[in-house]
Amino acid sequence: MIKVFYDAAEKQHAPDNFVIRGVRQPNKEVPERSELMLSALADAGYEVSEPEEFGLAPLKAVHTERYLDFLENGHGEWVALADSAPEIIPNAFPVNPHAGYPTAIVGRAGFHMGDMACPINAGTWAAARGAANAALSATKQVRQGARAAYALCRPPGHHAFGDRAAGFCFLNNAAIAAQYARDQGDERVAILDVDVHHGNGTQDIFYDRADVFFASLHGDPAEFYPFFWGYADQTGAGAGEGFTVNYPMPLGSGEVVFLESLNNAIARIAEFAPDLLVVSLGIDISINDPYAAFKVSAEGFSAIGQMIENAGYPTVILQEGGYVAPDLGTNMVRVIEAFSK
Amino acid sequence: MIKVFYDAAEKQHAPDNFVIRGVRQPNKEVPERSELMLSALADAGYEVSEPEEFGLAPLKAVHTERYLDFLENGHGEWVALADSAPEIIPNAFPVNPHAGYPTAIVGRAGFHMGDMACPINAGTWAAARGAANAALSATKQVRQGARAAYALCRPPGHHAFGDRAAGFCFLNNAAIAAQYARDQGDERVAILDVDVHHGNGTQDIFYDRADVFFASLHGDPAEFYPFFWGYADQTGAGAGEGFTVNYPMPLGSGEVVFLESLNNAIARIAEFAPDLLVVSLGIDISINDPYAAFKVSAEGFSAIGQMIENAGYPTVILQEGGYVAPDLGTNMVRVIEAFSK
Repeated sequence: MIKVFYDAAEKQHAPDNFVIRGVRQPNKEVPERSELMLSALADAGYEVSEPEEFGLAPLKAVHTERYLDFLENGHGEWVALADSAPEIIPNAFPVNPHAGYPTAIVGRAGFHMGDMACPINAGTWAAARGAANAALSATKQVRQGARAAYALCRPPGHHAFGDRAAGFCFLNNAAIAAQYARDQGDERVAILDVDVHHGNGTQDIFYDRADVFFASLHGDPAEFYPFFWGYADQTGAGAGEGFTVNYPMPLGSGEVVFLESLNNAIARIAEFAPDLLVVSLGIDISINDPYAAFKVSAEGFSAIGQMIENAGYPTVILQEGGYVAPDLGTNMVRVIEAFSK
Repeated sequence: MIKVFYDAAEKQHAPDNFVIRGVRQPNKEVPERSELMLSALADAGYEVSEPEEFGLAPLKAVHTERYLDFLENGHGEWVALADSAPEIIPNAFPVNPHAGYPTAIVGRAGFHMGDMACPINAGTWAAARGAANAALSATKQVRQGARAAYALCRPPGHHAFGDRAAGFCFLNNAAIAAQYARDQGDERVAILDVDVHHGNGTQDIFYDRADVFFASLHGDPAEFYPFFWGYADQTGAGAGEGFTVNYPMPLGSGEVVFLESLNNAIARIAEFAPDLLVVSLGIDISINDPYAAFKVSAEGFSAIGQMIENAGYPTVILQEGGYVAPDLGTNMVRVIEAFSK
């Protein structure tokens, strides 16, 4: 069985607000997600380990200092405002260049939060740090020789930019893991993102770099969040040109289409020949996920796990999305089972 | 008396939602604003003229085609979505470079709307076009030899970018007026923005140009909307370097501080020697404005009008902000009275 890392601090992050089509809805990125996955892990016989504390250095290798300060201290400033909501919700965004950096917390919130799906409450910082530590612990385990390791990261990370939260994400666990592996001596790291949403934060963090390859499979952003990134013509910039590859697929796609894209992505990763593979694992490609975007079956999840295992790289598997559904946990376990034989 | 232009189509735009500090509040940019100003104009003996229809060409000279298409047709697509709010409210924003352009209306809304203060309803396009036509009619009047003219523009314009609505604004009336004057033969046009909020859209539209000078007086963006623009070190870029000047002032400033900045701004405009001056007039610098940011008195408004009149340029005065307060209309009339003696 591969090792599984999880930090119970995630329970402190229970976001409330979410705005979709102009209507407030309950946030989908809830602690119940972890409960379902922990339950399935226990049923399958996995032991869950507490992560090691890695400190701030691996976070600073990916995120800006002022963003980390905002995540740590912003909520205190926010709740001290007159008539503020209990959690940070931004309302104005620096959408054009030549933007200055304000001191007011409302302005900083807009600067550091890219959408209405990542409210910050008093426990968000502790939860995000726990998730990053879990990702780092799994990475350390694999670098020490394990075939693979899994981190149940909550909140997830792949929509977080270097200086900006978005889409339920605050610290980019996959980017932090990949950068940590680089800093510990791996020369080439690949990130394979199989969440139903494009991993826009991860893409952006490594967009101009040739040492971290990024491949993402996801719903076509022309019709689906995150809307602005994940297009096939986004292939990297500068030194990173050709080191990003996107596989947007039509909404409604099932596992046949998905596995074909996955096969292509793995072939591209093989050309890159990474020392380590980080998988951003989203279970929201499931036919039963509340987002109802893709139609991957239980058997599809087993096939995905097996195809990634067959690629043969030391593999760090990090939880991204996947929302409350009866088979959320069992589908996740089907993927990691391929590495536990 | 100077001529006053106003299009009653503005009544069709009555935005509902507004999010501040994470809490939904009623939108402040309401038709009652115009009623108060029309009433004060009538009391002072001004006749109100309907604007001429200028068509789309002057709008296309400032705004992108896809943004204008979004303003005209987006609301119909939005209300056709399942479970959508009655007005367009964005939720995800293209905050980093390398952004693609989606087809889905939710994504286009985020691309074309910079904050939570510019909801679009069925009448927004007609209202915004009416305001732009009023601004153009006033500009034409001045170009034909009038000392000055005033347009009661609602919705206002100065936060609208070339491709993006923001802060109650959709079409940038001041930019449209300035560009129209340029296209009609004025070689140099200056825009003087005395709204309490920085005119970030106007700044952005002309940021790299030397033919349109932009000066803005406003609350310090470090502590006040629009947060990311309006800093003193934002002075233009490329060919436009030195053709933008910002006067951020501390919140709580009164007319002494304001008139000193205004005097400096007018001196900078004199160096530029414009053929025509466009004034973005905000009454929200009033001590009685609900934003409570500045403390300009009734006499202060008269002094502002007189100082701008003394500058001696053919002057187009366009209404920007200023919210419901008993003296909203009378303070506005005090400014334009300087040109009506």
